[in-house]
Amino acid sequence: MAMNNTAEPVTLLGLGAMGTALARAWLAAGHPLTVWNRTTSRAESLAAEGATVAATAAEAIAAKGLTVICLLDDASVRDALSEADLQGKDLVNLTTSSPAQARALAEWAQARGARFLDGGIMAVPPMIGTPHGYVFYSGSRELFDTHRAALAVPADTVYVGEDPGFAALHDVALLSAMYGMFAGVAHAFALIRKEDIRPTDLAGRLVDWLTAMASSVHQTAAQLDSGDYTEGVASNLAMQVAGSQTLLRTAEEQGISPELITPYLDLMERRLAGGHGNEDTTGVIDLLAR
Amino acid sequence: MAMNNTAEPVTLLGLGAMGTALARAWLAAGHPLTVWNRTTSRAESLAAEGATVAATAAEAIAAKGLTVICLLDDASVRDALSEADLQGKDLVNLTTSSPAQARALAEWAQARGARFLDGGIMAVPPMIGTPHGYVFYSGSRELFDTHRAALAVPADTVYVGEDPGFAALHDVALLSAMYGMFAGVAHAFALIRKEDIRPTDLAGRLVDWLTAMASSVHQTAAQLDSGDYTEGVASNLAMQVAGSQTLLRTAEEQGISPELITPYLDLMERRLAGGHGNEDTTGVIDLLAR
Repeated sequence: MAMNNTAEPVTLLGLGAMGTALARAWLAAGHPLTVWNRTTSRAESLAAEGATVAATAAEAIAAKGLTVICLLDDASVRDALSEADLQGKDLVNLTTSSPAQARALAEWAQARGARFLDGGIMAVPPMIGTPHGYVFYSGSRELFDTHRAALAVPADTVYVGEDPGFAALHDVALLSAMYGMFAGVAHAFALIRKEDIRPTDLAGRLVDWLTAMASSVHQTAAQLDSGDYTEGVASNLAMQVAGSQTLLRTAEEQGISPELITPYLDLMERRLAGGHGNEDTTGVIDLLAR
Repeated sequence: MAMNNTAEPVTLLGLGAMGTALARAWLAAGHPLTVWNRTTSRAESLAAEGATVAATAAEAIAAKGLTVICLLDDASVRDALSEADLQGKDLVNLTTSSPAQARALAEWAQARGARFLDGGIMAVPPMIGTPHGYVFYSGSRELFDTHRAALAVPADTVYVGEDPGFAALHDVALLSAMYGMFAGVAHAFALIRKEDIRPTDLAGRLVDWLTAMASSVHQTAAQLDSGDYTEGVASNLAMQVAGSQTLLRTAEEQGISPELITPYLDLMERRLAGGHGNEDTTGVIDLLAR
């Protein structure tokens, strides 16, 4: 494509599984790419695909264009940036980090004359360069707007605000919710383990049910917004706590530990004991605040 | 409709919120309906809508046609059936029960000359009589086939096997998975509680993400079927355990208890410590067996 001749240069620090997938996406889209990795062997195969390999992180950052960082953790980022001249640079950090780590890094980078954008990747490496998955971004809106075309190459972009911690916060919120769902699914499969029910048969029913029930998240959000947790309740907390006894009894009968479901059931019971039997389960969220 | 003149008579024991919704669905579809409830006031409003009110459970069961039971719990069912003549009767129990309770009740009813079908309602009362929700059935296939038309009136029917415990087991498995998802969602909302992020904005992203991630349940099932938990792994256990540190750090930063996500993260870590770092998270299911 002719437009590839004007594709912006990108520098990428970090060539783990995710970094390598990102590198290939930019190379495939015709972006001049400079790469650096602590272990040079990983950079060599990308050199054969057209990437320029920098000897040091500082040298890679000195190259023209956008700098994207995808390293192991926050400490690796600090280490890689320590010797670099950041004056006038645009930095995008895709390294997994907490909101506070992202905010601190943004402040540190800005003090050195850089613009900073943090990203949270909602994809696994095989999804990079496909229509699946996306990246949450937060921090400098100017940086995001300037480099939007290059950023959109590996995955869709979702900008969630100027606060550099918001991308990480959204990332962690969604992953935490996912692990909750996985925990529930693990319990469900464990329940049928010794029965004559094929996991693949249960899977279809689980996916349909979870997909249908996921839409109740909108009602939870509306209740949090209004502060009225009785709004639109179809099955109230008192009824749900009563029903949860059958869940625990069934786990016992099937010989499996209830540890993945008890924390939520216990919080429902605590909220009920607080006199909120006519509410939805939303009040559980209030009990998590320390 | 002319076919309503031949609609099969139904007897319903139990007029709680769910029982009342079921009663109205059968009345609306033209089924002659006999109802019984321990507290008679609830039956009176249904009498005005065309139902016949029986004075005792035994009298209700003696009426012609299918008997459906939707009471508080297994003990209430035992109590209601104790004085009745069950010889030649077809009983459908929609009362919430565990698989073992359903199996024991089936055996008890069959010994008294009845055919027995257990049901697990995957709906809240407002969904009865709408295209949403359905009921799992298991037990006598003959009973199910004979009364399929009447059973399909309040909600779609899904027959899951001759074992009278399977309907309850499917019901509990899906509800347990749902509470896992709700637990994850509660954690996610708690994380953003003190930030300038509207719950309704997060809700849309959560629903899309959970819906996309729910499809991984098919891969988990395939791995359980084959016994090879490394099959098709995109992000292995070692990587996921490493990433979970950011989830815990973020909960700490945001001042919320991690109690809803730690049980699953702990099991991932135990499985990793067992030397399964290259697997998917499926091995967590093995750790739940007692």
